[in-house]
Amino acid sequence: MTMTTNRTAAPRIDLPRLLGRIAALAQVGAIDGGGVSRLALTDEDGLGRDLVVRWMRELGLVVSIDAIGNVVGVRRGREDLAPVMTGSHIDTVRTGGRYDGNLGVLAGLEVMAALNDAGVATRRPLAVAFFTNEEGARFAPDMMGSLVFQGDLPLQQALDTKGIDGSTVGENLRRIGYAGTHPVGTNQLHAFVELHVEQGPVLEHEGVTIGAVTGVQGIHWTEFTVEGTSNHAGTTPMRLRHDAGLVAARIACFARDLTRELGGGQLATVGHVKLSPNLVNVIPNLAVFTLDLRNTDETVLAEAVRRTFDFAHELARAEGVKLSYRSLADFAPVAFDNQIIGRVETIARRHGHSVQRIASGAGHDAQILARMCPAGMIFVPSVGGLSHNVAEFTNDRDIEAGASVLLDLLLELAEQ
Amino acid sequence: MTMTTNRTAAPRIDLPRLLGRIAALAQVGAIDGGGVSRLALTDEDGLGRDLVVRWMRELGLVVSIDAIGNVVGVRRGREDLAPVMTGSHIDTVRTGGRYDGNLGVLAGLEVMAALNDAGVATRRPLAVAFFTNEEGARFAPDMMGSLVFQGDLPLQQALDTKGIDGSTVGENLRRIGYAGTHPVGTNQLHAFVELHVEQGPVLEHEGVTIGAVTGVQGIHWTEFTVEGTSNHAGTTPMRLRHDAGLVAARIACFARDLTRELGGGQLATVGHVKLSPNLVNVIPNLAVFTLDLRNTDETVLAEAVRRTFDFAHELARAEGVKLSYRSLADFAPVAFDNQIIGRVETIARRHGHSVQRIASGAGHDAQILARMCPAGMIFVPSVGGLSHNVAEFTNDRDIEAGASVLLDLLLELAEQ
Repeated sequence: MTMTTNRTAAPRIDLPRLLGRIAALAQVGAIDGGGVSRLALTDEDGLGRDLVVRWMRELGLVVSIDAIGNVVGVRRGREDLAPVMTGSHIDTVRTGGRYDGNLGVLAGLEVMAALNDAGVATRRPLAVAFFTNEEGARFAPDMMGSLVFQGDLPLQQALDTKGIDGSTVGENLRRIGYAGTHPVGTNQLHAFVELHVEQGPVLEHEGVTIGAVTGVQGIHWTEFTVEGTSNHAGTTPMRLRHDAGLVAARIACFARDLTRELGGGQLATVGHVKLSPNLVNVIPNLAVFTLDLRNTDETVLAEAVRRTFDFAHELARAEGVKLSYRSLADFAPVAFDNQIIGRVETIARRHGHSVQRIASGAGHDAQILARMCPAGMIFVPSVGGLSHNVAEFTNDRDIEAGASVLLDLLLELAEQ
Repeated sequence: MTMTTNRTAAPRIDLPRLLGRIAALAQVGAIDGGGVSRLALTDEDGLGRDLVVRWMRELGLVVSIDAIGNVVGVRRGREDLAPVMTGSHIDTVRTGGRYDGNLGVLAGLEVMAALNDAGVATRRPLAVAFFTNEEGARFAPDMMGSLVFQGDLPLQQALDTKGIDGSTVGENLRRIGYAGTHPVGTNQLHAFVELHVEQGPVLEHEGVTIGAVTGVQGIHWTEFTVEGTSNHAGTTPMRLRHDAGLVAARIACFARDLTRELGGGQLATVGHVKLSPNLVNVIPNLAVFTLDLRNTDETVLAEAVRRTFDFAHELARAEGVKLSYRSLADFAPVAFDNQIIGRVETIARRHGHSVQRIASGAGHDAQILARMCPAGMIFVPSVGGLSHNVAEFTNDRDIEAGASVLLDLLLELAEQ
């Protein structure tokens, strides 16, 4: 790394260089349709890691690999203070796109490159990280690497986790050479910022370039089981029915109607329904279905949960069916740092970009890092809202805008 | 057959004899749980037929077997007039009960036996029939034998019908020895009456012994296909959704609510639902579901169909999904003969039984016979409403009541 004290120009993002790295990384585990398949800790993930680590070293970063395989590249600051970190993940789902996670890591590297080119020395060190197994598509839970990094998931528990193929995280880390020696959980961070594709349709639909992410929604997943009575659809009067399928349908409708009453931030989805015996002329005696409720506002989310359950119980009594349920997921909402949210807005406007506050519907490493330091995220639009899909795409000009906002934000935070 | 002109007593049902025949026939194709498996034209059906034909001949009936395998046993009358016929079917579904169909045939034989015992000669001949393949569980359509007998299904088409195992009706009739020589469609009938178990819960629920069947409901089955857009349940705002599953749920709720508005006779069932991709956190892009609408009143049924379709189209437009559908079944309601309905009520009351008018939700041979002569049915209660089930059961005293009403009804009709 070369640092000069004579700046030659203000640092700026070199879009072709960034796009070149995105394209090069997408070649590792490339699949038909322009997508990528690099499940966590597979050989493909290992090769992708090797490539990014090589780039980190070429940029003069000091690379450390911890015991759960998180990789951090640090660019020294003028003072030996807690660093400002950016980053994301480079593992993908089985049929993923090239932007999810990768953009955040590679834009971080591009910021380092831009600072190098401009000869900028920041007050605080800057770090770029990629965390192990963010997707959770091979090993549960998702966001595993950041959870161990932050401290809420014990290292040994993570290492012992068996994946969908029966092998453990620890075995696979050793196999691909990423069972690092750096201790986990020792890092003090000044702040954490993550650039990511939105993975939803909102920014594109609103015609907005930059999302100042306010937080990550709370998630409440329930699987309901309704047990009624199977009977002949032609011989059973309506008043004598105990129709499990109807109860499922009414709860789905209630949840949708409730989102309208509670306002724009409340989401409700019934994505899975299974009826039994599932025949045209038999009243269903069994319905198993899921309800996915999300909100950034913990109080409203709790109200949505309570009211849906109240409705479900009352309905089950009226229809004469048995209702049971189990929780599939229950995460409280995460609020990002207000100062960082405000800075994202200010910087985006200064760059002439449209910007709006937006909540993340999906989980991200930044929500875990938010437990240990001020954290925030920058979103750029996903064309058609597509993600976890080989057709995932974000326009070049939006990538440039997002990376430029990230650059300025990191510069500001690093001077604090 | 012995006929005397000196009656020794009024004819009456011998319950043990009738129950004995029901039990004996249930041994043919008996399956675990007390049920019966005699799919149409299998070896088991053949053995069942042999047993019933033997009983017919023992009772002195003149047995004829027509080209579709319908079997008719005739007891001569005092005059050579069009006969009064009773009967049903002896084929069952794969895991059926011992009463469905069988009761109507064996109660008919018991009536003949009672008349023989009492030495009663009726004015018109009396006939007991069992019709081929009423269930339709092996060969479509159901009510095949009565349809050929009545004339709406051409004989050759029925004989050429391939079953679920690929063999034809004709082949199987020859194999089991029931490709008869009697011509079909030549019979003139004065009336047709069928005793049957209700196959639904109404009579038991109302505490009523005898159902005076007013007709068979019209049936309108539709398979709907809703095509929406699959998207992330966490990142897609409610206002931007095109949720195929929700549309299916709303139509199911609408149909149920409509039955309340249209009144007691309207039935609506959504028995089959299939969502795609059917995942907890993905908005369904495809829903395929069935709607079963039934009513004895053709006008109200048509209104139910029209209003459901109107609602579905409007909803699809509002949600931004594509709606398509195909008809799976569409049968107009059948009304039984008013005089016969009234006589069932009168006779039941005379016997001291509770009686109520009831519509049949299931299809029966009597509805086909109703196209060629005055026809009616007598229902007796099904415990728990169960049918097409090895646990199908009707109490002995209800069997006696039903058979006794049948006896008196046949006697009255035979004197006309």
